[in-house]
Amino acid sequence: MADEDIRGILQSVREGTLSVEEGGSRISSLYKDDLGFAVIDTRREERTGYPEVVFCAGKRQEQALAIIGRMRERGIPVLGTKAGPELAEAVRARFPEAAYDELARMLTLGAPMGDGTGLVAVAAAGTSDLPAAREAAVTAEFFGSRVELIADVGVSGIHRLFSRLPDIRKARVIVAAAGMEGALAGVIAGLVKVPVIALPTSVGYGASFGGLSALLGMLTSCAPGISVVNIDNGFGAGYQANLINRLGSS
Amino acid sequence: MADEDIRGILQSVREGTLSVEEGGSRISSLYKDDLGFAVIDTRREERTGYPEVVFCAGKRQEQALAIIGRMRERGIPVLGTKAGPELAEAVRARFPEAAYDELARMLTLGAPMGDGTGLVAVAAAGTSDLPAAREAAVTAEFFGSRVELIADVGVSGIHRLFSRLPDIRKARVIVAAAGMEGALAGVIAGLVKVPVIALPTSVGYGASFGGLSALLGMLTSCAPGISVVNIDNGFGAGYQANLINRLGSS
Amino acid sequence: MADEDIRGILQSVREGTLSVEEGGSRISSLYKDDLGFAVIDTRREERTGYPEVVFCAGKRQEQALAIIGRMRERGIPVLGTKAGPELAEAVRARFPEAAYDELARMLTLGAPMGDGTGLVAVAAAGTSDLPAAREAAVTAEFFGSRVELIADVGVSGIHRLFSRLPDIRKARVIVAAAGMEGALAGVIAGLVKVPVIALPTSVGYGASFGGLSALLGMLTSCAPGISVVNIDNGFGAGYQANLINRLGSS
Amino acid sequence: MADEDIRGILQSVREGTLSVEEGGSRISSLYKDDLGFAVIDTRREERTGYPEVVFCAGKRQEQALAIIGRMRERGIPVLGTKAGPELAEAVRARFPEAAYDELARMLTLGAPMGDGTGLVAVAAAGTSDLPAAREAAVTAEFFGSRVELIADVGVSGIHRLFSRLPDIRKARVIVAAAGMEGALAGVIAGLVKVPVIALPTSVGYGASFGGLSALLGMLTSCAPGISVVNIDNGFGAGYQANLINRLGSS
Amino acid sequence: MADEDIRGILQSVREGTLSVEEGGSRISSLYKDDLGFAVIDTRREERTGYPEVVFCAGKRQEQALAIIGRMRERGIPVLGTKAGPELAEAVRARFPEAAYDELARMLTLGAPMGDGTGLVAVAAAGTSDLPAAREAAVTAEFFGSRVELIADVGVSGIHRLFSRLPDIRKARVIVAAAGMEGALAGVIAGLVKVPVIALPTSVGYGASFGGLSALLGMLTSCAPGISVVNIDNGFGAGYQANLINRLGSS
Amino acid sequence: MADEDIRGILQSVREGTLSVEEGGSRISSLYKDDLGFAVIDTRREERTGYPEVVFCAGKRQEQALAIIGRMRERGIPVLGTKAGPELAEAVRARFPEAAYDELARMLTLGAPMGDGTGLVAVAAAGTSDLPAAREAAVTAEFFGSRVELIADVGVSGIHRLFSRLPDIRKARVIVAAAGMEGALAGVIAGLVKVPVIALPTSVGYGASFGGLSALLGMLTSCAPGISVVNIDNGFGAGYQANLINRLGSS
Amino acid sequence: MADEDIRGILQSVREGTLSVEEGGSRISSLYKDDLGFAVIDTRREERTGYPEVVFCAGKRQEQALAIIGRMRERGIPVLGTKAGPELAEAVRARFPEAAYDELARMLTLGAPMGDGTGLVAVAAAGTSDLPAAREAAVTAEFFGSRVELIADVGVSGIHRLFSRLPDIRKARVIVAAAGMEGALAGVIAGLVKVPVIALPTSVGYGASFGGLSALLGMLTSCAPGISVVNIDNGFGAGYQANLINRLGSS
Amino acid sequence: MADEDIRGILQSVREGTLSVEEGGSRISSLYKDDLGFAVIDTRREERTGYPEVVFCAGKRQEQALAIIGRMRERGIPVLGTKAGPELAEAVRARFPEAAYDELARMLTLGAPMGDGTGLVAVAAAGTSDLPAAREAAVTAEFFGSRVELIADVGVSGIHRLFSRLPDIRKARVIVAAAGMEGALAGVIAGLVKVPVIALPTSVGYGASFGGLSALLGMLTSCAPGISVVNIDNGFGAGYQANLINRLGSS
Repeated sequence: MADEDIRGILQSVREGTLSVEEGGSRISSLYKDDLGFAVIDTRREERTGYPEVVFCAGKRQEQALAIIGRMRERGIPVLGTKAGPELAEAVRARFPEAAYDELARMLTLGAPMGDGTGLVAVAAAGTSDLPAAREAAVTAEFFGSRVELIADVGVSGIHRLFSRLPDIRKARVIVAAAGMEGALAGVIAGLVKVPVIALPTSVGYGASFGGLSALLGMLTSCAPGISVVNIDNGFGAGYQANLINRLGSS
Repeated sequence: MADEDIRGILQSVREGTLSVEEGGSRISSLYKDDLGFAVIDTRREERTGYPEVVFCAGKRQEQALAIIGRMRERGIPVLGTKAGPELAEAVRARFPEAAYDELARMLTLGAPMGDGTGLVAVAAAGTSDLPAAREAAVTAEFFGSRVELIADVGVSGIHRLFSRLPDIRKARVIVAAAGMEGALAGVIAGLVKVPVIALPTSVGYGASFGGLSALLGMLTSCAPGISVVNIDNGFGAGYQANLINRLGSS
Repeated sequence: MADEDIRGILQSVREGTLSVEEGGSRISSLYKDDLGFAVIDTRREERTGYPEVVFCAGKRQEQALAIIGRMRERGIPVLGTKAGPELAEAVRARFPEAAYDELARMLTLGAPMGDGTGLVAVAAAGTSDLPAAREAAVTAEFFGSRVELIADVGVSGIHRLFSRLPDIRKARVIVAAAGMEGALAGVIAGLVKVPVIALPTSVGYGASFGGLSALLGMLTSCAPGISVVNIDNGFGAGYQANLINRLGSS
Repeated sequence: MADEDIRGILQSVREGTLSVEEGGSRISSLYKDDLGFAVIDTRREERTGYPEVVFCAGKRQEQALAIIGRMRERGIPVLGTKAGPELAEAVRARFPEAAYDELARMLTLGAPMGDGTGLVAVAAAGTSDLPAAREAAVTAEFFGSRVELIADVGVSGIHRLFSRLPDIRKARVIVAAAGMEGALAGVIAGLVKVPVIALPTSVGYGASFGGLSALLGMLTSCAPGISVVNIDNGFGAGYQANLINRLGSS
Repeated sequence: MADEDIRGILQSVREGTLSVEEGGSRISSLYKDDLGFAVIDTRREERTGYPEVVFCAGKRQEQALAIIGRMRERGIPVLGTKAGPELAEAVRARFPEAAYDELARMLTLGAPMGDGTGLVAVAAAGTSDLPAAREAAVTAEFFGSRVELIADVGVSGIHRLFSRLPDIRKARVIVAAAGMEGALAGVIAGLVKVPVIALPTSVGYGASFGGLSALLGMLTSCAPGISVVNIDNGFGAGYQANLINRLGSS
Repeated sequence: MADEDIRGILQSVREGTLSVEEGGSRISSLYKDDLGFAVIDTRREERTGYPEVVFCAGKRQEQALAIIGRMRERGIPVLGTKAGPELAEAVRARFPEAAYDELARMLTLGAPMGDGTGLVAVAAAGTSDLPAAREAAVTAEFFGSRVELIADVGVSGIHRLFSRLPDIRKARVIVAAAGMEGALAGVIAGLVKVPVIALPTSVGYGASFGGLSALLGMLTSCAPGISVVNIDNGFGAGYQANLINRLGSS
Repeated sequence: MADEDIRGILQSVREGTLSVEEGGSRISSLYKDDLGFAVIDTRREERTGYPEVVFCAGKRQEQALAIIGRMRERGIPVLGTKAGPELAEAVRARFPEAAYDELARMLTLGAPMGDGTGLVAVAAAGTSDLPAAREAAVTAEFFGSRVELIADVGVSGIHRLFSRLPDIRKARVIVAAAGMEGALAGVIAGLVKVPVIALPTSVGYGASFGGLSALLGMLTSCAPGISVVNIDNGFGAGYQANLINRLGSS
Repeated sequence: MADEDIRGILQSVREGTLSVEEGGSRISSLYKDDLGFAVIDTRREERTGYPEVVFCAGKRQEQALAIIGRMRERGIPVLGTKAGPELAEAVRARFPEAAYDELARMLTLGAPMGDGTGLVAVAAAGTSDLPAAREAAVTAEFFGSRVELIADVGVSGIHRLFSRLPDIRKARVIVAAAGMEGALAGVIAGLVKVPVIALPTSVGYGASFGGLSALLGMLTSCAPGISVVNIDNGFGAGYQANLINRLGSS
């Protein structure tokens, strides 16, 4: 990884401007920005194409602020997921350029990446699935895709889906967000020529078991062309959709 | 679906009063009332016999109000399920004709449908099962059935059930609501000639696992004549019971 | 239960032709045909409309034969479920009138009941779901319904379902058999005016967990008008469908 | 435990006929009959009232034979559970006095213990529950209870249970064996004055999940007076029933 | 059930002082005290030896008060389980004789039943298991047993258990309450001659899964002489223990 | 769907060469090739880009043969999944051009589709994961991708993975097949710029629970850029990978 | 256990300075400090090398205070786990020498044990895993190990782990704390020569199921040299790590 | 890792005897012995202290033979786990020095490593737990520990354990193998000063759920000093025990 850097160090070692010991040590310390409680993956973009994302749940407010601050200092655009309104307020007090999407519970700082070419369609089965769907949409947009969010096209009134099919078919990749039985993903996959990222949500009660029913339904769908992310993981769905979309742009 | 409409459009196309392109587009848009975050299934009644129902859990207050408002404008009777008291208050402030059943957590706007012929019996195993049982009763009544709710006839004191059997046997279909081991459904099904809709509830603790014990018990009952709905899904039980009851009336 | 018999005994007691002690004992023994290892529910038809059914799995061959023999002696039509081919052979050797459906693993002895009025549609998502679907079809026919089995209409190629909708819509009640994600039941329920009995099957692998994915999907379907039976319980689905169909005939 | 022995050793130590070291060592070795792969609990009867039982599943034939042989040498009556027919044959070849109950898969060697006072009733819901029920019956008899096994009294035809209630009520303790939804235990417990030991069986399929549905149903029964043993653990149910019965005899 | 009453009615019918119709009706209504939302099982004591118990969780305050009130009017002693402090306050305001055990969350009104003969030992593994253990103790005492509660004898310091063994061995039946791995029940059962009622508690975290680990451990214990009640069901354990103890007193 | 056909029919209707009734009927029957037990989705390729695939598990040999025969008659290339060796033999006897991959349990008839541009890398954690990995590889190749299968690069010896990273990084999309803890997918996703399709396998024992551990691990991976298919669903992984790869080629 | 004490008593008995009865009684009471609701294991250190630890969750404040008080009186160092801030405040009010680690939710009173030789490395996958990791670190330090906590080295940016490997490799034993897929433990175990204690945390959502995904992943890791503790059981991990470290010091 | 090799290459690069490109390539290929379907981790011993182990389940015979052959060529001692008797026979035909332990299902080729200092005690709860226990014992011995296997010391007859305690206490680390409720590990950990590796086995039936009950019980044990391996993973337990034992020897 980061082959040029390693080659550079090897070159210096060969030229004698760098001792063998120091060469080894420098390779070790190439990627480290250590806050003590967190180590920022500063060269992640070089390795995976996109910078690190901040998972805010379970982090204390001062930890999240410190991580965001260090990333901004280095000019890294920040996407914060699963961020509650209190944290959002604290972040916006410190970083006025921060934007907060309350429905998606996401913070964004810095300009979206990429040029917005290629369409990602995010279809949501019901109104209650919108938070997860919107998390996917915000993520894909942040990383450079054009996104269209298509709400309330669940299979219990399947004509609603059919009336939006022409829009859905324009996309290079589709995110299908649904709770309860999660059938939306399989029905769409049987109607389109592009990959479907299935996003199970925790919408439902009783035998939904917190999204398990949608998750299992999507995993076992008889329609090929589906792959699945974690329950309520709109971020993961949007990220994967953007990666796929980018392939179509290159 | 909605075959006459499609035929009408085809007719206009044939007669030349409608272009081929417009004909295709009009078929697509036949059923759409799109609020952005929700698409009301305006012709659901034509397709399935009954209008759409509003699942209130997970919807924001302004979303629920907008959906209810649009349905009332179109003259569609509204049944709102899993509605908390705060939402109920907001709805009643805006729509004074709204009624709220606190135990069932249901909102109703508009006159019940149908003529109340045919009896649906809703039997509840214990007092704590009443919310689910009442959700079933309110639903079946709203859609046109006559309903009798029979409380506290669980199998641990089985004579209570026997003393109410003559009432239960008058029904065309029976909803049996029970938590814990959910045995009520199987015992009733062994004593009557009509279908039993088993409604597992989340009443219980420990190995009830939120209603799982009742659900599994009802699914595996050795008595035939039972089919099961989701845990605490009184609405689904009442809806199915009314559909069955209506068959007996036609 | 069996109120006339009880009244008859009470009458005899009043008239003095029966002692009080004997009256009590006779009430106790009204329904008993005890083979030692099994007690045949000889008056089940009177109580629930249909005779007892023989669940063959887990019974030894001699037990099954004895039970079937006793029922035939009493002129009760026999439906045997989950019967393997070895048992079928033994039964047919003893009772030449027995018919065996190998796919459904069902034995039938005696003429079907009822007059075949009213249509039950049994829709199967895939070819591998046919054993369960056929168990439902054979059951409903045995108990007096007319049945149409519609194969391979799963949602991954949803046009196959739409092309069969006119047939499906003729039924008074629909059984929807599906494994994997089990989405068929919800899609159908959003398109018809009659009750849907969802029949999850164990078809699938991996996260299907022996039918659990289909079961949970059907229980949590967002379409109302569905109730669910146990995994692979074609018998239960067909029995319930026939009960419902009969309501429409009365 | 075994206080007299310990006191005896202490006495010898005091009297000087036993050294302190040897006294300690002798206490350690009081209860040991070590076959290398198994240590027979030779004084279990003294501690718990009954000798050790041999759980045959998972043991190799030579291991089982060696254990049984050693117990017979010491005159300990042997009860072997979960014993397949091959093992039974090998045991009977070596120990002609051995009896084998094929249905219960149990081996017995040596005379039953106790005097057969006090009745244990073992009620089985269906014919397929008989193996577990019979395991309970054989166990309780072996340890000294009088047992009546009452077959096929499941709740789907609840009158069968009522007609046998007088027999069931004669017992000091009742074992209720049932698979599927396991409702039998709760119904009986609501009708009797004595403890019910619920014995869930693995009879069923689909959502029975190998007996889980019956187990959960019995654990969560709303009727008090029930305690539950492991799925298919007829031995445990019969053992506990005999312990309870013995209390009534003392 | 309630055979004398039925005989009495039959007698009146024979003598002609009661019409046949009225006789049938009177049998039906023998056991009914119907509050609308609850049907009090007024003759439960006659059938099962003890009066009905009020499960307070999930009941509204006014429902609980009404049920308690009606039972007190009829002179039935009341035991209320899973009762929160608010309900307790309301009950004590209305019924000053009510006693409330805050740890066990139990209400009692009326004198304990029976004479306190026979000892029930309730052993608790840890201090955190005391609420469940105390629920068992209060229950057994209320129904007439003498009870000794032995705290903090979990198996991680097994000598604590051994030092209390002499006390435990005096009991006719033992309740073993434990969370986490629930090993206490099996260890005790290997050391005593009387039945052990295993009471799994929800004490623990992580892989305890709300008491599942203790429940499974107790069900699968290799020591015979154990039967198990639901997680945190101290009431059920105490009730069963008292039933067993009573056998030893008769 | 199939818009040109529909437009053509509408055009004929307008021109009067087709009656309105016949137009409606023809739209309905556009896609139907019904074998009775199966309905071949003959125009699936037009709708989703690729023809239907035959899931062989649970189908009888004569059913599979009939389906394959009909598809070959229509010139549709056939991919059969989860096909046992007996079926393979029967298929090859009838269709000599059939190829069978025993490890992947797959049948192929007809030339691969597409031009083999774009690389799909299939990485397998261990030798035992090869059947699932190979199913993915065969599928992606059949549908037109170039594939490189990279075996035995599990994370317990992570240098093996690093030494193959240059090959893996050449791919447009990566399938990561792993059982047990399934960590391979997350580690790869943290090192590459393209989408990773995680393929959990049922390799393992004990707490692997048939692939559940790998499935959950892959779903909850903290590395973005992963989406997951069903356990052992190599077909689904390969199909999705090919869909994504094709995007990069267009 | 405590063999010298037992020998001492035996000696006194032999010498006649102690009666046989009193000797037996004294052996029984050797280890008992009974507070009624709790029995302090006062000689645990002698038996297992370390004093008892106070599990604070589920204990009432006065119970925890009493236990801590009694232990301090006897000069036993106290470690309190899962202690909330309210309890911490109450403890510090009574025992000013108490220290509270808010992140780890741990109380410590009294000097750490041992000499701090031997290094335990505690590696945490993410910032949100720090509470569990810190619980492990505080525990190991309290019982005498030197500890280095290494934060944020999860496998999604695996170079962060590699850059810290030299530090990690200095340890005698490593605790690896991770939520989500829990892959950290397996990756580390493939790179070091010492035992790894895997500490799954409840960090994550959806299919993490409260830490189940990490737990299963760690249990099924294909890398040998791992053993696992309960979810969020930092105490258990730190305790085990210290035990192992001590072996290296002796 | 393998720092000297890397330094050597850097040195050669500096000295100019190796080009920069070749240096990079050589680092990549340092550890590779690729059989196509498997990549042998040839320098694992250098990294983790011990050579790779062959997990035989799920591998084809020719694959296993090829892997073993290549390892033997390189002089690496071979330990093969989960090896069936057929494979064993094939291996011994090819490699006559191979030894096979049928109970443990393990193959060994080459001399045990290390010097056998330090004792590992492997305690098995019952005779049926011996296969897993023996797998642990063979593993620890192969890697250089002295091992004592102590059979049949389950907690249902706890004196058997106490009589073997002096032997158990001589060990530096203890493996406790138990199925069913798995209580053995917790009881031992409360009695010793060294680490306990808990090895849950799949022995049991019903609610054992294939070893889940033992696994959960061991994870949630209230005794500290325990860590747990996968169900039936005797290899993992023995490997970890040997690692720990080695620490005590260094």
